[in-house]
Amino acid sequence: MSVTSARRRPTIHDVARVSGVSRGTVSRALNGDPYVSPAALAAVRRAVTETGYVVNRNARSLVTQRNGTVVMVLSEPQEKLFEDPNFSLLLRVATRRLAVKDVALVMMVAGDDGDRERVVRYLRGGHADGVLLLSTHAGDPLVEELEGLAIPAVACGAVLGREGIIPYAAADDREGARQMTQYLVEQGRKKIATITGPLDTPGGLNRLEGFCDVLGRKATKKLIVHGDYTRSGGEAAMAELLSRAPDLDAVFVGSDLMAAGALATLRVNGRRVPEDVAIGGFDDSAVASSTHPPLTTVRQPLERVAEETVRMLLELVDGATRPESIVLATELVIRDSA
Amino acid sequence: MSVTSARRRPTIHDVARVSGVSRGTVSRALNGDPYVSPAALAAVRRAVTETGYVVNRNARSLVTQRNGTVVMVLSEPQEKLFEDPNFSLLLRVATRRLAVKDVALVMMVAGDDGDRERVVRYLRGGHADGVLLLSTHAGDPLVEELEGLAIPAVACGAVLGREGIIPYAAADDREGARQMTQYLVEQGRKKIATITGPLDTPGGLNRLEGFCDVLGRKATKKLIVHGDYTRSGGEAAMAELLSRAPDLDAVFVGSDLMAAGALATLRVNGRRVPEDVAIGGFDDSAVASSTHPPLTTVRQPLERVAEETVRMLLELVDGATRPESIVLATELVIRDSA
Repeated sequence: MSVTSARRRPTIHDVARVSGVSRGTVSRALNGDPYVSPAALAAVRRAVTETGYVVNRNARSLVTQRNGTVVMVLSEPQEKLFEDPNFSLLLRVATRRLAVKDVALVMMVAGDDGDRERVVRYLRGGHADGVLLLSTHAGDPLVEELEGLAIPAVACGAVLGREGIIPYAAADDREGARQMTQYLVEQGRKKIATITGPLDTPGGLNRLEGFCDVLGRKATKKLIVHGDYTRSGGEAAMAELLSRAPDLDAVFVGSDLMAAGALATLRVNGRRVPEDVAIGGFDDSAVASSTHPPLTTVRQPLERVAEETVRMLLELVDGATRPESIVLATELVIRDSA
Repeated sequence: MSVTSARRRPTIHDVARVSGVSRGTVSRALNGDPYVSPAALAAVRRAVTETGYVVNRNARSLVTQRNGTVVMVLSEPQEKLFEDPNFSLLLRVATRRLAVKDVALVMMVAGDDGDRERVVRYLRGGHADGVLLLSTHAGDPLVEELEGLAIPAVACGAVLGREGIIPYAAADDREGARQMTQYLVEQGRKKIATITGPLDTPGGLNRLEGFCDVLGRKATKKLIVHGDYTRSGGEAAMAELLSRAPDLDAVFVGSDLMAAGALATLRVNGRRVPEDVAIGGFDDSAVASSTHPPLTTVRQPLERVAEETVRMLLELVDGATRPESIVLATELVIRDSA
């Protein structure tokens, strides 16, 4: 590559010369102007390939602010991207949906302040037409920055405290949690605890709300432990619950991954699932069917969440006014853990 | 966001007005010109935040072609990104290394022709200073396109057939395979088979070469089966080997993930590991220590591979001539599977 990277960068004039059309026509062709003849377009395409021309953002941005690129920003440490199967699903569906519109998806991880500054710089640089926010926590400084930028943003799951500003598509966390808690009650469970996600995330907060809708908050205070959506976090939270309430007979766990961790802790402590302790998860991710026993859980329509988020973002990019946020129904999935 | 996205985009003139410095100073400040006073720089920074200014690529690119962004391109279907622990390690190390230089990493998946076209369009658009190639297969059309672009590119692992054009950092696949095969021989194994990776990848090709260096190609022809670096691929390949040579007593598997699949097939077929069949893996990834039994494998220095690749790319971006490619030594790690 040194040869190419060392040589003079080909200019739009080189493309015009090689393609045999005017510089203006090249510029219009590069910017997707519909009033360029197919022949000229083909000639320009060939010339661009031949010369190895890289669009001079100068010529480009004067005509259009579009890149045909959307950036998905994950506001979590990178390890989570790979541990939590929900993220791979959201990324896969979003990529596929954007591909239909020939829009490229680039992914950035904003796990710390440095990352966030680079994401903002990237957005300021005008390299993306829009932003898909993933797992954004309440008070995330990135959101404040985004509000100051003239760049469309849509979130997978509400951004707590910014629901009115950043449109989102999300599962009905609260109703889903109600369904599961009610189901555990109906199974005759008397002492039902819960392991929540982080309370600065909608899943953490709203699933706890749903749990309390059924059992009340006061009565269950010491039966509420907070986790971090990781497997190890679920193990630790379950251990904490067992020490607080050795006689618990059911736990609603705020994510399948944490539920897998909880199952491990129960096994180590000789508790049988579901005989001694019933476990209810949330997500119906790939994890749910691979645990022993398979998880009774709440299915999130994540495919649709991703699809709707992409649709909303593309509408915003196309200049639509703020789309309505969407909350999608969940579904109770009965397996063997409860 | 509709409000902000609907309003007029702030211009460099707005930034100049708000910051109280000349448009030229704003432009120089935005382009990192060292001859801008700290006071002016601070004023411009405040004004940029206040106005929500997004760099007009016009003003920007006239002065510098730098974005402070590097794109990592994975030439595999997206599922592999999440299944293969090597990718998460490479991504994590590269992100960390680039962060030290305040360079942002964006990731793109090039799993099909459409993806590849979008990656090339993205690079043509001048949105990245350089490219890190991951798992690039021989004959990948993306590489041909890259050669035509004046954008530095470095590969994690050689790009077969392009070793002389695209610099790379890689583990010594062939020597590592020799070590493992020799070790199996020394353990007194008489009928040693191998499951390779795809032969259009350096790991697939060179690890097979190393295997044949020790056992010869002819003698072992029917004991060579090709996999695809996935767990399920390893299961299928192991089944094929058992049908071809029921009396085999050792298998060198070209990746830990495929080895985990091979172990599952052997278990199903009632073969004990290592008593009946010894299994040697390759990678020493997270998978290796979590299998039953834990894998005897070949450790790839993937952290260093990622670090060296980033170093080489940043040198190229800084205008250095083509750096030397680097091949790093592997290490035999003895556990329980052989």
